[in-house]
Amino acid sequence: MWYYPDPSPGLDIPEVNAAVEEAFAEHARGHVQMPPKVYITFDTGDFRTMPAYIPSLGIAGVKIVNVHPANPLQHIPTVMALLVILDPATGTPVAILNATGLTDLRTGASGAIAAKYLAPSRTVTLGLVGSGRQAAAQVDAIAAELEITRLRVWSRTEKHAALFCRRYAAMDCSTATLKQVCACDVIVTTTPSREPVILSEWVAEGTHINAIGADAPGKQELDPGLLTRARVFVDDPPQAIHSGEINVPIEKGLFSPEQIAGTIGEVVLGRKKRESHGEITIFDSTGLAIQDLAIAGIAMKNRNRVMLEFP
Amino acid sequence: MWYYPDPSPGLDIPEVNAAVEEAFAEHARGHVQMPPKVYITFDTGDFRTMPAYIPSLGIAGVKIVNVHPANPLQHIPTVMALLVILDPATGTPVAILNATGLTDLRTGASGAIAAKYLAPSRTVTLGLVGSGRQAAAQVDAIAAELEITRLRVWSRTEKHAALFCRRYAAMDCSTATLKQVCACDVIVTTTPSREPVILSEWVAEGTHINAIGADAPGKQELDPGLLTRARVFVDDPPQAIHSGEINVPIEKGLFSPEQIAGTIGEVVLGRKKRESHGEITIFDSTGLAIQDLAIAGIAMKNRNRVMLEFP
Repeated sequence: MWYYPDPSPGLDIPEVNAAVEEAFAEHARGHVQMPPKVYITFDTGDFRTMPAYIPSLGIAGVKIVNVHPANPLQHIPTVMALLVILDPATGTPVAILNATGLTDLRTGASGAIAAKYLAPSRTVTLGLVGSGRQAAAQVDAIAAELEITRLRVWSRTEKHAALFCRRYAAMDCSTATLKQVCACDVIVTTTPSREPVILSEWVAEGTHINAIGADAPGKQELDPGLLTRARVFVDDPPQAIHSGEINVPIEKGLFSPEQIAGTIGEVVLGRKKRESHGEITIFDSTGLAIQDLAIAGIAMKNRNRVMLEFP
Repeated sequence: MWYYPDPSPGLDIPEVNAAVEEAFAEHARGHVQMPPKVYITFDTGDFRTMPAYIPSLGIAGVKIVNVHPANPLQHIPTVMALLVILDPATGTPVAILNATGLTDLRTGASGAIAAKYLAPSRTVTLGLVGSGRQAAAQVDAIAAELEITRLRVWSRTEKHAALFCRRYAAMDCSTATLKQVCACDVIVTTTPSREPVILSEWVAEGTHINAIGADAPGKQELDPGLLTRARVFVDDPPQAIHSGEINVPIEKGLFSPEQIAGTIGEVVLGRKKRESHGEITIFDSTGLAIQDLAIAGIAMKNRNRVMLEFP
């Protein structure tokens, strides 16, 4: 059994995006096993257990990931993750991966695949709501699929947005108001908000939005009125209904599961698509265990690993 | 984060039994979190993911355990397990344990706690149906709670029963027919059978039975007629109904969930007990994640461990 202490640096982003795209396609074909995430809750956070199996990639395992929002006060990351990989043929544990960095990569990849298929054009302006690790992962991954001509960044803390723009200066990056961010062709939201941050009236026809931040009951970033104006795609319907962008509007009776336009896997397979230049599309990403497994298959080529005695 | 390659040898069995007893009590008090096991199935076996949290012990984590029955043909164990332990305060992974040996210990401990409270007397004759690793773990753990005056052992392969008796010669151990085994005060069944092995007519009034083998849908070891003659205690009702000794009789309409007499945790708390000398009691053990966590708390005192870089 191998332990991979830091398998994410140096991974090839186009390869990562392609692996996640293939996992979504297998999901839409009904060829994966992925039971719902299981939550354990603590006073200060929670952890989620996410087992899955992708037969076509010959990979099975479990992601274990926590969310403890007060951790940064102790200089500990809010989110940390491990992946345990098993050999499907014998059940033998073959690898354990530090999956904290991989989690950013796989979430970036899901946004990139959604933007690749649903953005109004191949050349886009990109607006970011939130400027943390997830925002950077989205830009890096989307840049491998589309040409980004301009970046507009809003953060609750303007200094953070300015620092972000310094890092992405090559992409004509500037800080902006929420309204200016919403004038971009593609918008990515990555905040932990529990109230809508984006108003429907700010969003023009033809925009594509990756709604990344909402990943637990009670979280939301978009005006519910925007959801009903748009076609909403999800990664996994039960998970999105439980904890994605649509969870609060569904709870309040402002959106219904029947209004989901389809899954990202169906989009990848061409069964569903953007149907007009003017339509607003939204991708509600909650994060699937099969994304992590698909990336693990690549990350395990890393030579920085430690042999562990087992059994 | 520490890795424990082999934390089970040398563990103090009375301490292990006490930890499992405390976990059962906390379960009955409603003070633990333990969602149902999640199954992923392969062509050649399966694996189960078992997250849990015991606040009173300050321990949380996930057990990952496979069952691949054909593995011994390749000289690989049928069952292998890992435990991942997280710090409840921050969600940081603090330890990964090779839990293959711990799984035997915790299952032995559950049988020992059941026998301690439900056996007809403190001094008992013990009959074993099956003579593998689980049978040995049951004898070792029960011997820490009760005085065993005689061991009677049946195995499908008589040579295995004879080898077992050589190991336990100090306990007046001999091989026996199923009927002779069933004449003992306490019977322990540890086979992977899918058909009843024990007939009701062989079992006298006052006997206690630990039914350990059935841990998946379709498995059973006891005559359903014996279940209706007896008072049946379980570790966790939903899990027992799904995959314990009672799963097949319930499926066939020969037993109903309402007939469950109580949980082992209720027995530990004194809310339920053996009510007469003549009654037959059965403990249907499926194995709970909280048993594994309780033992992990002890096993992590082992100094044979490897530091792993995380995050």
